[in-house]
Amino acid sequence: MKITTLVLLAVTTGIFVAGAQTNQPVDDWKPSPSNQPGQPYPQVNSEGRVRARIRAPQAQNVQLDISGKKFPMTKDADGVWTGDSTPQDQGNHYYGLVIDGAEVPDPGGSFIFGSGAWRSDVEIPATDQDFYALKNVPHGQLREFFYFGKTSNTNRRCFVYTPPDYDKDPNQRFPVLYLQHGYNENETGWGQQGCAGFIMDNLIAEGKVRPFIIVMENGGITIGPGGPGRGERPRGAPPRGNGRGIFDFSAFEHALIEDVIPFIDANFRTIADQPHRALAGLSMGGMQTHNIALAHLDTFSHIGIFSGGSIATNEITDMSGFKQKVKLVFVSYGSRENGATGKADIADLEKAGINGVFYESPNTAHEWQTWRRSLHEFAPRLFREQ
Amino acid sequence: MKITTLVLLAVTTGIFVAGAQTNQPVDDWKPSPSNQPGQPYPQVNSEGRVRARIRAPQAQNVQLDISGKKFPMTKDADGVWTGDSTPQDQGNHYYGLVIDGAEVPDPGGSFIFGSGAWRSDVEIPATDQDFYALKNVPHGQLREFFYFGKTSNTNRRCFVYTPPDYDKDPNQRFPVLYLQHGYNENETGWGQQGCAGFIMDNLIAEGKVRPFIIVMENGGITIGPGGPGRGERPRGAPPRGNGRGIFDFSAFEHALIEDVIPFIDANFRTIADQPHRALAGLSMGGMQTHNIALAHLDTFSHIGIFSGGSIATNEITDMSGFKQKVKLVFVSYGSRENGATGKADIADLEKAGINGVFYESPNTAHEWQTWRRSLHEFAPRLFREQ
Repeated sequence: MKITTLVLLAVTTGIFVAGAQTNQPVDDWKPSPSNQPGQPYPQVNSEGRVRARIRAPQAQNVQLDISGKKFPMTKDADGVWTGDSTPQDQGNHYYGLVIDGAEVPDPGGSFIFGSGAWRSDVEIPATDQDFYALKNVPHGQLREFFYFGKTSNTNRRCFVYTPPDYDKDPNQRFPVLYLQHGYNENETGWGQQGCAGFIMDNLIAEGKVRPFIIVMENGGITIGPGGPGRGERPRGAPPRGNGRGIFDFSAFEHALIEDVIPFIDANFRTIADQPHRALAGLSMGGMQTHNIALAHLDTFSHIGIFSGGSIATNEITDMSGFKQKVKLVFVSYGSRENGATGKADIADLEKAGINGVFYESPNTAHEWQTWRRSLHEFAPRLFREQ
Repeated sequence: MKITTLVLLAVTTGIFVAGAQTNQPVDDWKPSPSNQPGQPYPQVNSEGRVRARIRAPQAQNVQLDISGKKFPMTKDADGVWTGDSTPQDQGNHYYGLVIDGAEVPDPGGSFIFGSGAWRSDVEIPATDQDFYALKNVPHGQLREFFYFGKTSNTNRRCFVYTPPDYDKDPNQRFPVLYLQHGYNENETGWGQQGCAGFIMDNLIAEGKVRPFIIVMENGGITIGPGGPGRGERPRGAPPRGNGRGIFDFSAFEHALIEDVIPFIDANFRTIADQPHRALAGLSMGGMQTHNIALAHLDTFSHIGIFSGGSIATNEITDMSGFKQKVKLVFVSYGSRENGATGKADIADLEKAGINGVFYESPNTAHEWQTWRRSLHEFAPRLFREQ
């Protein structure tokens, strides 16, 4: 009996200690690197927890909301509310505060466009963050401009990444990757939270990638009033009508093939042929890539689908033509997503003699860390043969 | 007595009606053109009032805060709060909401950087908004890039506007305007709320301006920890340490002369001489322009000071040298600011034989509409002689 009691005590104590360890956050909080200038909150700790803080002396109830999951915050004597999340995946997360029922951005975090709106975002430093870090290497440019799209009959906004040496030699021409965002995101996503520029700058500095141009357009063409384009002040806010409403894949297909690509080929020093043109996208942008690439195999030679499906062999009507034209089918998923079909499809494509690559991002879900890594894996495989 | 009563009644009624007319907003509300996609609020009416709305069912007190002036909001049965401001000047205004004491951005408006943080902004359509409207004309590019500044010993972020034809002829070279933001603003201001790109695109399309490059750098170099540059995700959020802290004018002078200008001349097709280089800025950027231009008359030929002081004749030690080197001193203020000294200084400069221009923006204060108009008046006067 004594021994049993002792064992029971030890087990109970052990469980209790383990429980305390699980619930008590590690006290190594630091401001998130994505905070607004000088803002001490939100903070993150080594477990990936997020700690939010806001002064709201008259409020009755304040919560931290990370992608729809709400965490309670508590008020101190000065009317300042503080609350922690459970551990989050490494990388970038949309979040907000709920103050007495009002869903608002956090004035401490910076803002990125996602879920159809400009949202607060918090960056959880990642073990592999070096590949998208700002370094003292030659940098490309992220160019924002507007042009009139005849097909969409609107002023369109476009972002283009040009590699560091683009302006050095006026005779050099470059391949192009058309890179699409996800549902309810917009053309700012890849350049901002996607870190496309830094990923490319670093890969180029390491000699791991052939320099190419990246075109980031708005794939969310909506039907109805208020198309893209607003007169006043476009920067930092997307054209109205984007990011919400009914998406028209066919409208984007027409815009991409008939407006975007001809405009880019006319205004940038591209190598304007199929072997030097790639199409990729994340989530909805992956589905668009799937549809548009399969319908335009004479336009694109390299295909990237990040967390957005894959290409099954039975979707390919002319296998020998496909094999001749398509130099790469790259499919990726986060390990917390279900990428089984994508993996199997890539294996089938490889069996059929097609250059297929499947990549799984460790310990991430349907989120930007998966897609930063996907671009980092995809880019070095582009335009190597010609 | 009867007549007196009647007159009194009429007068009283008249005052009452007039009072009601003054306090009752004109019911022609429309969503502000700067709203986030699909957001019906904030709205503006033809008087320039701002109407904010937010759902906050448990809140006790919600206010609309426009540049520190607070307006009450009232709750309906569904827990939705609505409130109107008094009439505001035409143009762009920073604002926020105060929910039970918490100062937060409005999820309806879009975000611009001002007062040291990303703030909600609302655009009041202006009678002269055509000059900064997005039109179907050839557009320049707004280019964002990073480079290492030896003087500041940091990775610096820079925005450069290149005119529409910049990439057409690789042999053509362009003059450059270095254009600075105000205190607690950053390098995003002129390209975003300042509409610098659209102002230039429209002036160029109308043949009213000689095309030139605009360089928009961060003039708010702070002393202390956390200089510009953050590793993760710079776009949409300024480098840490900017926009707050102790500003060091001398540090910015060194950075501009020793880092920025040499980098721009080495990486863009500039005409790299004094006659083709201008310096201008708003508010604090005007004061920096004043100091730096006077100390570097061999570097800049055209000087623009918007709501930030002026140059008095007694500050000029070598009047004949100044007259020979400086082709334009442009000073502007909003009519609701005190521009009397600036106007008198310009008159003195003109008497001394210097090309001086004073511009007063009608019915605006120390705000972006004054500075949009100032750029629109300043740009056509640049680089006309060479």
